Amino acid sequence: MTVSPLAPAAFPAMPDIKGVTLSTAASGMKYTGRDDMLLMRLDGSGSIAAVFTKSDTAAAPVQWCRQQLGAGGRTRAILVNAGNANAFTGDGGMAAVTACCEGVAAKLGCAAGEVLTASTGVIGEPLDSAVLAARFDDLASGSADWQAAAQAILTTDTFAKGASATAAIAGTDVQIAGIAKGSGMIAPDMATMLGFIATDAALPQPVLAALLADATNRSFNAITVDSDTSTNDSVYLMASGAAANAEVTAADDPALDSFRDALDRVMQDLARQIVRDGEGATKFITIAVTGAANDRAAHGIGMSIANSPLVKTAIAGEDANWGRIVMAVGKSGAGIDQSRLDISMGGVLIAAAGARLDDYDEAPVAAHMKGEEIDIAVKVGDGAGAARVWTCDLTHGYISINADYRS
Amino acid sequence: MTVSPLAPAAFPAMPDIKGVTLSTAASGMKYTGRDDMLLMRLDGSGSIAAVFTKSDTAAAPVQWCRQQLGAGGRTRAILVNAGNANAFTGDGGMAAVTACCEGVAAKLGCAAGEVLTASTGVIGEPLDSAVLAARFDDLASGSADWQAAAQAILTTDTFAKGASATAAIAGTDVQIAGIAKGSGMIAPDMATMLGFIATDAALPQPVLAALLADATNRSFNAITVDSDTSTNDSVYLMASGAAANAEVTAADDPALDSFRDALDRVMQDLARQIVRDGEGATKFITIAVTGAANDRAAHGIGMSIANSPLVKTAIAGEDANWGRIVMAVGKSGAGIDQSRLDISMGGVLIAAAGARLDDYDEAPVAAHMKGEEIDIAVKVGDGAGAARVWTCDLTHGYISINADYRS
Repeated sequence: MTVSPLAPAAFPAMPDIKGVTLSTAASGMKYTGRDDMLLMRLDGSGSIAAVFTKSDTAAAPVQWCRQQLGAGGRTRAILVNAGNANAFTGDGGMAAVTACCEGVAAKLGCAAGEVLTASTGVIGEPLDSAVLAARFDDLASGSADWQAAAQAILTTDTFAKGASATAAIAGTDVQIAGIAKGSGMIAPDMATMLGFIATDAALPQPVLAALLADATNRSFNAITVDSDTSTNDSVYLMASGAAANAEVTAADDPALDSFRDALDRVMQDLARQIVRDGEGATKFITIAVTGAANDRAAHGIGMSIANSPLVKTAIAGEDANWGRIVMAVGKSGAGIDQSRLDISMGGVLIAAAGARLDDYDEAPVAAHMKGEEIDIAVKVGDGAGAARVWTCDLTHGYISINADYRS
Repeated sequence: MTVSPLAPAAFPAMPDIKGVTLSTAASGMKYTGRDDMLLMRLDGSGSIAAVFTKSDTAAAPVQWCRQQLGAGGRTRAILVNAGNANAFTGDGGMAAVTACCEGVAAKLGCAAGEVLTASTGVIGEPLDSAVLAARFDDLASGSADWQAAAQAILTTDTFAKGASATAAIAGTDVQIAGIAKGSGMIAPDMATMLGFIATDAALPQPVLAALLADATNRSFNAITVDSDTSTNDSVYLMASGAAANAEVTAADDPALDSFRDALDRVMQDLARQIVRDGEGATKFITIAVTGAANDRAAHGIGMSIANSPLVKTAIAGEDANWGRIVMAVGKSGAGIDQSRLDISMGGVLIAAAGARLDDYDEAPVAAHMKGEEIDIAVKVGDGAGAARVWTCDLTHGYISINADYRS
C-alpha cells in the first residue's frame, strides 16, 4: 500500500514511560509477516481510563471494558488485536473476550477483570481466541518500543502514528506518549478510534478519566474522514505513577495545567495523523468556526462542512467552490442567520454578511487550493461559540480502497 | 454527459393537465443550445401548495415563495430557471426575485405576489434578472409539453424525469402529472429537490398543502444521493380544478383515498428517478427498516445506512460487506438493542439476533450484488416503526463529476 502523501517524514522519537511495558506478537490470524497483537501493561500500581464509541452496535471488547471500568476495580493491562474487530459476534464474541482476558490474566497473575481488550478489523467475523492465546506467553514476557507497538495495531493505515510531550506537575517532570490507528470509518462523535496513551504521572483514576474525556473532545472528537462511526472506537490513557509527583485529587487543579496542555498536544497530534492517513487523502483540511451560539453549535457546523462529500470533492479537485460551504453550513441545523455569515479560505475573505464580496478575486484562493493544507474559516454571527475540526478530501483513492477492501 | 445506466428507457407518456399551461425558453445564461427556463401557470382559478428546504441558507426564491404562500393570497404561476441557484446572494438576490416576479406578473396581468419562483444551479453567483426578463414575452405566450418542461429544469441530471397517474375523487376522474430534477446535493431532509406536480383536481389550498407534505415524507424525503441538502430544494403541487370534482374540505377525507395513492405513486416515481440519476450511480438501492420504536426512528436508521460512504462504496464494488450495515445501524443513534438485529440482502437472511448465521452462505448474496437493484432489509426489534428509503452507490463517477464541475 502506498504511504499517504500527507504522512509525516518519519515516526517520531518517543520516550519510554516508566512503569509501563509494551510487547507485540504475530498471531497470523489475518496478516502475514507482521505483528498484529499488542499488550500494554502497568508494572506496578497506576490507573487506566478510557472513552468508547457511542455506537449502538459497540463491539464485544468495548462492552467488556465498559463493564470492568464501570465496576471501579483496578485494571492493569490492555490486550489489542488487529484484523478482526470482534464486533456483532453475539455471545461467541463475548466468550472470546472472556477467554482472552482470562488467558492474559493467568500469565500476569491477576484477575481477568483487570485486563482490558481492544480489537480492530473486519466486523461480524467470529474471533478464534485460541489463535491469540497461542502468543500470550510471548506477550507476557516480551517488551517492545512505541514504534513496534504503533505498527502492531494498524489495519488500512499507511503509516504508524505516535506523539509525545513533557509536562510538569507541581514541579515534577512527567512524560506522555501515545499511539493511534485509523484511516477509514472515522467520525468518532463523542468517542474515538483506537488510541493508547501512557504517562508516568501519578493520577487517581477519576482524575485520569476526566482529563481524558475533556482532551478527547478537543482531539479525536474533532476529526472526521468519512462520517462513518466505528463499532470499536476506543482511547485508553494509562498512568503508571512512576514519576512520583505530588498528589492531585481534581481534574481542574491548576497543578495540572501543564499536563492538560501536554495531553492536548499529544492527542491532537495523533488525531491529526489519523486525518493525514484518511483513506485516499491528498489534502489536510482545517475548519475554524467562530461566532456561534455555543461551542457545541460551532462543532456541529464544522462537522457539517467536514462531512460534506461535495465540499470534500471540490477540495480534491482544487476548486475554490465556496458555495458548497454555504450549503453545508445551511444544512447543519444550527439555526444560523445567513445575513451574518462570513466565509474565508486560505485567509482570504470571500463572502461577508450573506453574499459574495463585490471585489472578490478568486486568484489567491485558487492558489491556496493547490497546496496540501487547506484552511476554511466560517463566522456565523457574534456568539462566543467556537470550534476547530480537521478532515481530509474525498478522492478516487477512497473509492478504490473501499470498493475493494473488506474492512 | 453519459446517461445514467439506471435511467428509464424513455421519457414516459404524460397527460396534459387541463387548466395548466407550460412554456419554456432559453436564456443563454449558462447553457447553450437548450432551454433553461420554465413557466407553469394556472389558466383560471386553482391553487398551489409547496414544501421547501429546511436549510438555514435557503435561497432567495425559497424565501420569496414562503412569504407569498404564508400570506395566504392566491398564487397562479411558477417561474423556474436552471444554471444559477440565486442562493447566498443577499439583498441583490431578493431584488432579482422581485424583479422577475414583477416582470412575469406584468405579462400575465396579475400581482407580483401571485408569481412563485424556483432556481437551481451555482450557489453564490449574482443572478442578472434582465437576462431572464428578456424571455418573459415568449414564456407568457408559449406552450410546451411535459418532456420539454422536464428538460428545461435540468442541471447535472443525465435524463429528464416525469411521472403521471390517474385517480378518482367522488366518481370524477382526475389526472396527476409531475416532473423533477436533481442528481447531486440530494438529501432532502423534510424537504425536497425541485419537483413540479400538477393536477386538474379541484382541491382547496390547505388540503393541497396537507396532501403534499404527507406525500413528500414518503417520497422525496425518503431518498438520498450524497447526504448534502441543497439551498433550493422545493416541490410544488398545482391544482387547476378543471376536472370539476365534488368539493373536498379535508386532506383525510376518504374521497381522497384514490388521489392520495396516485399522488404517492407519481411522487415516489419521481423521487426514485432522482436516485437513478444520482451522480455516478451504477446501483439502485432499496433499504427497508422494520421493528423500530416508531416510523421516525426507522427512517433515521434507513438514512444512516443510505448515507454511509462505506456501505455505498462496498455496493459499488459488488462486495456483500454486511458488517458495514451493522456499523451504519449502530451509528444512527436510534438506541437499538444489537442482540435483536437481523440483516438481509437480496432476500437472504445473513445475520440474526446479533450475530452472523452459523450456516450463512455468501454465494446467493454475492450473486445479488452483481445486479443493478440492491435490496437491504434490516429488522431492529419488535416495534411497529417501519420505513423504506432509496439511494444509489458511491463510485469513481461521483468523484469525477464533483471534483471538476462547479455546481
